[in-house]
Amino acid sequence: MTGRRTAVLLILDGLGDRPVKELGGKTPLQAAKTPVMDRLTKEGQSGLMNVIGPGITPGSDAAHLSLFGYDPVGCYPGRGPLEALGAGLASKPGDVAFRANFGTIDSDFVVTDRRAGRTFSREEHEALEKALSGIEIDGVRVHFVATVEHRGALVLEGNGLSGEITETDPHETGLKVLESRPLNKDAKKTAEIVNKLVHLSHNRLKDLDLNKEREKRGLPPANILLLRGPGQHREIPTLQERYGIKAAVIAGGSLYIGTAKYIGMEHVPVEGQTGTIDTNFDNIAAKSIEVISSDFDYVFIHIKATDNASHDGNAKEKVLAIERTDKMLGKIVEAVGKDIVIAVTGDHTTPLSVGEHTCDPVPALLWSSFMRPDATQAFSEIDAADGSLHTLRGMDIMPLLLGYAGYIGKMGA
Amino acid sequence: MTGRRTAVLLILDGLGDRPVKELGGKTPLQAAKTPVMDRLTKEGQSGLMNVIGPGITPGSDAAHLSLFGYDPVGCYPGRGPLEALGAGLASKPGDVAFRANFGTIDSDFVVTDRRAGRTFSREEHEALEKALSGIEIDGVRVHFVATVEHRGALVLEGNGLSGEITETDPHETGLKVLESRPLNKDAKKTAEIVNKLVHLSHNRLKDLDLNKEREKRGLPPANILLLRGPGQHREIPTLQERYGIKAAVIAGGSLYIGTAKYIGMEHVPVEGQTGTIDTNFDNIAAKSIEVISSDFDYVFIHIKATDNASHDGNAKEKVLAIERTDKMLGKIVEAVGKDIVIAVTGDHTTPLSVGEHTCDPVPALLWSSFMRPDATQAFSEIDAADGSLHTLRGMDIMPLLLGYAGYIGKMGA
Repeated sequence: MTGRRTAVLLILDGLGDRPVKELGGKTPLQAAKTPVMDRLTKEGQSGLMNVIGPGITPGSDAAHLSLFGYDPVGCYPGRGPLEALGAGLASKPGDVAFRANFGTIDSDFVVTDRRAGRTFSREEHEALEKALSGIEIDGVRVHFVATVEHRGALVLEGNGLSGEITETDPHETGLKVLESRPLNKDAKKTAEIVNKLVHLSHNRLKDLDLNKEREKRGLPPANILLLRGPGQHREIPTLQERYGIKAAVIAGGSLYIGTAKYIGMEHVPVEGQTGTIDTNFDNIAAKSIEVISSDFDYVFIHIKATDNASHDGNAKEKVLAIERTDKMLGKIVEAVGKDIVIAVTGDHTTPLSVGEHTCDPVPALLWSSFMRPDATQAFSEIDAADGSLHTLRGMDIMPLLLGYAGYIGKMGA
Repeated sequence: MTGRRTAVLLILDGLGDRPVKELGGKTPLQAAKTPVMDRLTKEGQSGLMNVIGPGITPGSDAAHLSLFGYDPVGCYPGRGPLEALGAGLASKPGDVAFRANFGTIDSDFVVTDRRAGRTFSREEHEALEKALSGIEIDGVRVHFVATVEHRGALVLEGNGLSGEITETDPHETGLKVLESRPLNKDAKKTAEIVNKLVHLSHNRLKDLDLNKEREKRGLPPANILLLRGPGQHREIPTLQERYGIKAAVIAGGSLYIGTAKYIGMEHVPVEGQTGTIDTNFDNIAAKSIEVISSDFDYVFIHIKATDNASHDGNAKEKVLAIERTDKMLGKIVEAVGKDIVIAVTGDHTTPLSVGEHTCDPVPALLWSSFMRPDATQAFSEIDAADGSLHTLRGMDIMPLLLGYAGYIGKMGA
């Protein structure tokens, strides 16, 4: 619309870090050559951000809800619905969803392999999905999709469901598949359906030809669905309902796609976008430019490679991931810089020295061509402490972006 | 536990100040030689803290609740329960407690000395406690303990009590002892019990031998208990319940001990620890090191001498108190620095020039050996304004300490 810009959120997953010996005491963001981020910092504003709150270590999903302007304390639905949406399943308020594994059990329902050998061909995925299709238990429809290797997602669609139930995955071999238990009396029906489903999955899978083939090849059969991370899709307003905006997600990882879809973003696939250092940065840049130039009001771009390097303790790869992202950002700003307000930040700190998420705040920069600049000259955890945004919360980013981009009306007259 | 550190909160009471002419325009913290705090500031992070909120002058008890992570707006129980716990009385949710004074009244119940001469021997304290022991009124048990001089604490234990009643202490001589009035209809029973108790205390005390002895020595008799600061012990989660931590308080002043015990800390006594400049800093250091090295997860160390000097307008003594605390801190860090995350700050500002608490923010520093440093080089009210913690609230300190120390789980996945 007239006078409005597209709001862009670029997340480098696990961006924040601590000084690294191998990098001469610099953080990866300080060590990386980031001429584009540095220029945007000079022309814009930066600060430090507690994504959820001071001292709180953010999980990736809760962190992204905060960055999208949603308080995770009130609206975090558990992992299931986010993974299910990310896997391409439909899920709507009231539905209950799970992460699912193909597993191997013996005749006593004892788990002998939680991943049923891990390796599955596309044909096997399709045959397994087909075997599990069309299930309805006590009026509740079951939707399953296989995703990567032994993994999948499952949605229960129907009335009167509850996410307050326990998992069936024992998380260890040598233990029996667990009975799902209701955590309150409203969840009794859901737990019963889940327990029926577990047995039904065994009956439908155990004698499939593909499992006979797997056993011939020395692979364990996929003869059960193990369910974990139950959660109920909540009634929360979408971004469209809250702000009247049309929002897109450009991400490789299904959890990020799912979290974005949960609050109403539309997934725009990019060829060659993965969660790794080899993701196709050029294609992400090109698609981002295309989407920004279309009728989307808000675009969320997610780069996972930084976090993978952090978890692996690979300083060089984290620096490389940052530098490749910087180049990608350069292309976007060059093409559509005048049409955007952009925030560049992380969803949490993953220090190379720790290899896990920590509670350290992340650096954040906010830029548009018209923005009042502050004195910071470079983008890093250390420099950002001097920026004019001071200390932000993750939930501040969405209103800041949309406010500057022109999507939040005046309050009062 | 593995990978966890002990969270340490060191409070210099009334630490914050304003520029002092006598100190060449420096604040006491700037004027004091504090090599340890300065080093921790260089290696760690600092900021300014509104202990309760911007513009709010913190009382010591409410300030400490904030620093322990509790919103005093919702959970401040009034002074009585905190003093009672600090005095060593048991108090539990539902009980109502008071600060108590021995006073002197004439036959018309007019107060002639609010402190009954102020001076009491240990034997007098014991005789007075004995005279007031075993009281039960309308099913409510009364527990009293004498503390320092004319002071004591009193707890009402029973059902259906309310802290919403007025005091009996008229706070002036020449006025009659006040009737306690209920502030709402649920408090009627409690006010009645208090009024019966006041008369009963007079009956039990007035003819005691010790009072005849006092009168012989020209001292006013302790012939009444004056009650003030009523408050009800609330149902609030302890630190153990909220965070699963075992917490210790090392303090000389009973109010600080009581406030810490109110939320579940265990008091660890230190020989020679007082609220004055002559407190035994060496013993505090040694006991702190011992407690940090034991199975406590959190240790709160309180130094009162800074505040006393402030109230007395004694700049030199405030500087000295800070320097002695710095040396004590040095011993702790030298011995157990690698095992702790520590915050050093004040509970409020008490400017020497004012002699009372004010609303100025206090400087705060946060340090651990692994922490991302900021650019600040010295610990003071002025330097902290440039620190990467920016502006904190008192309630942020507990999650920051516990987050970095490893006691707060990841939110989400």
